[in-house]
Amino acid sequence: MIKKLLIPNRGEIAVRIIRACAELGITSVVTYTDVDRHALHVKKADEAYNVGADPLAGYLNARRIVALARATGCDAIHPGYGFLSENPRLAERCEQYGIRFVGPPAQVIHCLGDKIEARHTMEAAGIPIVPGSHTSLGGLEEALSLAEQIGYPVMLKATAGGGGRGIRRCNSPLELGRNYERVVSEAQKAFGSTEIFLEKCVVNPRHIEVQVLADHQGHAIHLFERDCSIQRRHQKLIEIGPSPQLSEKQRATIGKLAVKACQAVGYRNAGTVEFLLDAQGNFYFMEMNTRLQVEHPVTEAITGVDIVQEQLRIAAGESLSYRQEDIQHRGYAMELRINAEDPKNDFLPSFGRITRYYAPGGPGVRTDGAIYTGYDLPPYFDSLCVKLTVWAMSWEKLLNRAHQALHDIGIYGVKTTIPYYRKILASPEFRRGEFDTSFVDNHPELLNYSADTREPELAAVVAAAIAAHMGA
Amino acid sequence: MIKKLLIPNRGEIAVRIIRACAELGITSVVTYTDVDRHALHVKKADEAYNVGADPLAGYLNARRIVALARATGCDAIHPGYGFLSENPRLAERCEQYGIRFVGPPAQVIHCLGDKIEARHTMEAAGIPIVPGSHTSLGGLEEALSLAEQIGYPVMLKATAGGGGRGIRRCNSPLELGRNYERVVSEAQKAFGSTEIFLEKCVVNPRHIEVQVLADHQGHAIHLFERDCSIQRRHQKLIEIGPSPQLSEKQRATIGKLAVKACQAVGYRNAGTVEFLLDAQGNFYFMEMNTRLQVEHPVTEAITGVDIVQEQLRIAAGESLSYRQEDIQHRGYAMELRINAEDPKNDFLPSFGRITRYYAPGGPGVRTDGAIYTGYDLPPYFDSLCVKLTVWAMSWEKLLNRAHQALHDIGIYGVKTTIPYYRKILASPEFRRGEFDTSFVDNHPELLNYSADTREPELAAVVAAAIAAHMGA
Repeated sequence: MIKKLLIPNRGEIAVRIIRACAELGITSVVTYTDVDRHALHVKKADEAYNVGADPLAGYLNARRIVALARATGCDAIHPGYGFLSENPRLAERCEQYGIRFVGPPAQVIHCLGDKIEARHTMEAAGIPIVPGSHTSLGGLEEALSLAEQIGYPVMLKATAGGGGRGIRRCNSPLELGRNYERVVSEAQKAFGSTEIFLEKCVVNPRHIEVQVLADHQGHAIHLFERDCSIQRRHQKLIEIGPSPQLSEKQRATIGKLAVKACQAVGYRNAGTVEFLLDAQGNFYFMEMNTRLQVEHPVTEAITGVDIVQEQLRIAAGESLSYRQEDIQHRGYAMELRINAEDPKNDFLPSFGRITRYYAPGGPGVRTDGAIYTGYDLPPYFDSLCVKLTVWAMSWEKLLNRAHQALHDIGIYGVKTTIPYYRKILASPEFRRGEFDTSFVDNHPELLNYSADTREPELAAVVAAAIAAHMGA
Repeated sequence: MIKKLLIPNRGEIAVRIIRACAELGITSVVTYTDVDRHALHVKKADEAYNVGADPLAGYLNARRIVALARATGCDAIHPGYGFLSENPRLAERCEQYGIRFVGPPAQVIHCLGDKIEARHTMEAAGIPIVPGSHTSLGGLEEALSLAEQIGYPVMLKATAGGGGRGIRRCNSPLELGRNYERVVSEAQKAFGSTEIFLEKCVVNPRHIEVQVLADHQGHAIHLFERDCSIQRRHQKLIEIGPSPQLSEKQRATIGKLAVKACQAVGYRNAGTVEFLLDAQGNFYFMEMNTRLQVEHPVTEAITGVDIVQEQLRIAAGESLSYRQEDIQHRGYAMELRINAEDPKNDFLPSFGRITRYYAPGGPGVRTDGAIYTGYDLPPYFDSLCVKLTVWAMSWEKLLNRAHQALHDIGIYGVKTTIPYYRKILASPEFRRGEFDTSFVDNHPELLNYSADTREPELAAVVAAAIAAHMGA
């Protein structure tokens, strides 16, 4: 087994991986930049190393991270998500120095990171893909001609993209012309490559993704799907498993497709095969994420499998702990990403001091967070505060429990998505389990809530102080 | 369905029931005494009513509670555990005024509350009972003669007893003579009755209890067992489900016995049938608890059934949501009662200000508590701070996860059982799943821990203040 693991990451995912290490008897080591010296992952890890004054640079320097792993005697690196998790350079460097990388081989990351190459591979393996360009586009002319062939609307996408960035929908030749250079420029900025490609736009699609696990002995299994259709500008907000929109037959089909996709690329470790589901019930391969997903707790809640522990076991060379027939799903689960954002103000990030944090509790409620009362949420990273994952035996019970948990949790000092999610959960369409990726855009009325941001404890303190003053 | 529920209780169980109400759309109403005005159940409930200056009296006055329910338009009362939960007077008064009592009928509470009557009923139904007196003892003479017949050691027990009070073991006629009047006096003090009886003492027993649910349509099911052998002076500390000490055959046997016990007394709502399991694998009926148990989350974790919601549905006259064959157990769960006590000092209660509370998180971890940072734990009630319930796919994974969670949780300002539980979890006997009710007494060496009670946040504040002072 792995003895000592470096986690060059921060926030809730670093804490999540630290917990898995503690349960497996692995020493956990984290990195932190100056701004993160009071972060929870630093308090929880067995060892923590400062990697510089710049808030971000230390988390992004593959050479330095591998050097740190070697210097501190780590035999493995778990990259988490974001930062270097899908950068083949970190995986390569690990391979070079004999450090186990908790993820697939560098060459698999490379292949799947190139969205065009991934499309080719999947198409060859018999996985349905969205019609589109077979190579990076040579220019606007080529894009216009191809779009004419496959029909509008089309999507322009960065070849090296991911995480919802470098994507634009074009409804007409005019919009295609207007967006072309924008996407090229976004691709350059976000991914360091100007290559982009074009796909037919699946109208009102559902985003359905399948969690997979594959070991080095050639076994690959799926852990059912998550429905991530509730998103805003390609950023997932609420993820659900299993999808209330799939039949058991569709569930079986997509699971098999995902395992096939895994085998087609020689996948190893945990991964996610993302599909679009159109209104006619057709699945199209979208991309495969070669890392732990933010929303993995949804799958853990319905299957009972500890995905991070499985990742660490697989990286250590162990066989999967489960066969496909061992994986059963029970009930429904939902992850609500509690972000420090103001939905009413175009989801503007709301960083600052958490003056009070009350964790929720009771049956079926899980939290993964890295905030605490008194923590200063720094403005340099994403706005995720806490992942609230709720499980219940049925979809209806889940809706009620999630709604209750959103009243039970309390975060004060910053604005959050909590009151907005309460509105989503009360929406009849959502409750019927009928939603596609346009749900958020199509329901601006859900932003009409009154957020009670008074902090009850402080209010009580003020009241007591006033009372004392009046009495004196 | 119930529309408005009165919960004449406090602490974590009141919060638990409030959460169930929120999920079922029931308005929740709680009571509180002056000392509890800042308690969490008061903050979480839809309505809260002050029932007086005395810390306890308001929670114990059945007449006043039913009057409050009527005055506030409540159509049901859930008593929780403790206080009036097993007092037939509250149930009777509810019946009298047409208020639904969330529990069995008063006459069933009465029958099962009388330990001798319960023994008779169970014996008649073919449930094995521990050999002992068939009526309340007439005096020491009768006790000595009966003990001679069935053989030492024997137990003296209060007929109206429960919760581990009014029980003494006697290894010889001398000890029987010495304890007789003590138990009579304890019974009088704790339960208001001097009646006591005598039973053969099962040596090194395991405490195995079965959760049952029964509706008003005559359906009764069991939800498997909990192993509550880890106790101190008959107070449970750690509860486990399913028991790692039972074979599947024993599990099936005890489940059937419990359902039979239920049917024998015309049981309704949630209840618990407690058995002793001796070293030879024999089960003996001990008692049946006619209320929600502290440790119900263990069963919720392994079966997915929300026991409190089922209680409310049953009380409203609905049929059980589950048939016996729907109830499956998955994995293992353990509840650790985090008490504000100092195990090193004979488990002396440690009340006072919670200067800091960090809730644990991650997969398989549930908390039920009523504490928060800044809360003053009052000295008038039991010392339970938080119930930490941990689930994992296997017994070994559960041990590791629970150990991790005990490091993840943080309670500062009072002494707690946390470091002691870490020692129990590290004990080889416990890890092998081999323990009986003498485990705690037989392992005084587990009290040799060093409790790190420094509060990291405060330490940081002090350090910063010192640093500022030194710099000035």
